Amino acid sequence: MDVDTTEKMAVRIRALDRRSMAQARRRQAVLTKPAGSLGRLEDLSIKLAGIFRQPTPQIKRKVIIVAAADHGVVSEGVSAYPQEVTAQMVFNFLSGGAAINVLAKHVGAEVVVVDAGVAADLPSRSALHSARVGPGTSNMARGPAMTTAEALKCIEAGMSLTKEHVARGADLLATGDMGIGNTTAASAITAAMTGASPEQVTGRGAGVTDQVLELKTAVVRRTLEVNQPDPRDPTDVLSKVGGFEIGFLAGVILGGAEAGRPVVLDGFISGAAALIAYGFSARVRDYLIASHRSVEPGHGRQLAHLRLRPLLNLRMRLGEGTGAALAMPIIEGAAKCLRDMATFSGAGVSKALTDAPEAGG
Amino acid sequence: MDVDTTEKMAVRIRALDRRSMAQARRRQAVLTKPAGSLGRLEDLSIKLAGIFRQPTPQIKRKVIIVAAADHGVVSEGVSAYPQEVTAQMVFNFLSGGAAINVLAKHVGAEVVVVDAGVAADLPSRSALHSARVGPGTSNMARGPAMTTAEALKCIEAGMSLTKEHVARGADLLATGDMGIGNTTAASAITAAMTGASPEQVTGRGAGVTDQVLELKTAVVRRTLEVNQPDPRDPTDVLSKVGGFEIGFLAGVILGGAEAGRPVVLDGFISGAAALIAYGFSARVRDYLIASHRSVEPGHGRQLAHLRLRPLLNLRMRLGEGTGAALAMPIIEGAAKCLRDMATFSGAGVSKALTDAPEAGG
Repeated sequence: MDVDTTEKMAVRIRALDRRSMAQARRRQAVLTKPAGSLGRLEDLSIKLAGIFRQPTPQIKRKVIIVAAADHGVVSEGVSAYPQEVTAQMVFNFLSGGAAINVLAKHVGAEVVVVDAGVAADLPSRSALHSARVGPGTSNMARGPAMTTAEALKCIEAGMSLTKEHVARGADLLATGDMGIGNTTAASAITAAMTGASPEQVTGRGAGVTDQVLELKTAVVRRTLEVNQPDPRDPTDVLSKVGGFEIGFLAGVILGGAEAGRPVVLDGFISGAAALIAYGFSARVRDYLIASHRSVEPGHGRQLAHLRLRPLLNLRMRLGEGTGAALAMPIIEGAAKCLRDMATFSGAGVSKALTDAPEAGG
Repeated sequence: MDVDTTEKMAVRIRALDRRSMAQARRRQAVLTKPAGSLGRLEDLSIKLAGIFRQPTPQIKRKVIIVAAADHGVVSEGVSAYPQEVTAQMVFNFLSGGAAINVLAKHVGAEVVVVDAGVAADLPSRSALHSARVGPGTSNMARGPAMTTAEALKCIEAGMSLTKEHVARGADLLATGDMGIGNTTAASAITAAMTGASPEQVTGRGAGVTDQVLELKTAVVRRTLEVNQPDPRDPTDVLSKVGGFEIGFLAGVILGGAEAGRPVVLDGFISGAAALIAYGFSARVRDYLIASHRSVEPGHGRQLAHLRLRPLLNLRMRLGEGTGAALAMPIIEGAAKCLRDMATFSGAGVSKALTDAPEAGG
């Protein structure tokens, strides 16, 4: 795959189906509730109708793709945890003990764990999808994190796995991440793509001290100075200041949009992946649902750039797809209300006395 | 029952169990995630431990109690819908076509429909719990909505039904409402209990025009002037400017707290019921979980008075318990993470390099 191919793939994302959206909107107006009273659930249901290209879409199989990788930049001392935690957490995912396992099971979603480039050798297991690009990225504070070929390789791997899952029936996709050091990469991507300063987009990640936060911000600044990523070229940004799991998740987003399925974004790392995907095609935005607002300060910048409003704000900052998992029941609830509620005429309920303005919306 | 009995019941609410809360807090610190990274889910899990009086509580049976009643004040022209819609929606609840039916089924909760005083004669059906206090309240803009005896009767009925459900295994309770005209009563209660002005707490309800909003605000003002409810006496406030379903839900809240179960509040009507319950015992607050922030302007005043922060803000204003239903998976998710996640030592995951400050929380 080369850059041209990726661009061709990206432009194969279809516009939302306006006809299904109009039908869904008309149906919302005759369901037994005051018009607009389900607020964002109504907007969400109309968006889903446009994505699925049918007026009353149904969500049956939910898949959360959790990509893990390591980051050379940890040698700068930017993280609260040692690098081996990435591999340890992959084992935790495989044995079902992590927050994402608990929450995915709770909401009835499948977790797909991907090794996109963990520094340790992980044993081959059927439950672990291997898409290794390398044993962690190079230290981006001293040069590019990866080559252009590697950047394209991880995007393509994410697209390909996602399309496989859609072919097998997945109809609600979500992104999740694990990677010690990856908030540093996400901060650099966010600064590069949105024009924000390192101070505005660098946060505590898994919980660094004030002193490490200062160091981390300086590392993000140096990374941008050393690499000069070009915001008009997402492959350039990903290769210079990204991560293998971030590229893989950008591929998940592009693949999901191309396959015509909604993609639920988790927090800050997923947001960085979305900025890369958005760089390939602005249309990808129509397929994105922002699950929650992370505590990470750069997340707000990402969402503003993507013009997305998160469904939840629970002061979370864990990653793994945990915010996306929690948003899934809301998204399904929106689709079910549209599909399963009775209409005024069907239920013999009188309509409003006057055509009132919609107070919500 | 007289006022003394109610007050005795109210003070039978136990303080939260500090020991279970401390154990839950310690467990949160050793689960495989950065400390504090699950944000409000962690706080919620600790509160649940205190309510259930055990360090890893489990939620198994969820019940949403939806109380319906009519309001004499509708003769002032304050509503967007005709009064018969209350009864029509009760039938819709019983046949499963309303938003609350769809969302409750989605989250695995049982809906209990209560006639607390609908103006129409509803046929006796096993699925409908009858706790009729009268055929709707009197017009509170001209005098008290109900007698003191009626106010106490609906509170007691709510307490009693709730305790029955807890005895049969309900461990997560929620409040829901239906009643054309009930946002007018809720506005009057909120003004009386919080000291806010009618303008600050009166909104569009199911969707009235600017002109009707002005009339409705004037009706709330007149109601307060005519009745002079005493904010130190919740029975006085409920009887003068309340509603049968609001009193019933105040009873659900008191009964749930007394039985040691969390009560998930829906929006503005449930909030008015909570203000009444809180008037009987401030301790009731420890058992309350605010599900969502309603579009109704008075809802913010209620939550500030109760010092509760809603989990969701989805611009909803439907009532019925719909916001409470949507919050249930989040509450269950919080309990499950606390109970089911692996610990650092159990999963062989390295802990943080430094004792970092908690960025979230």
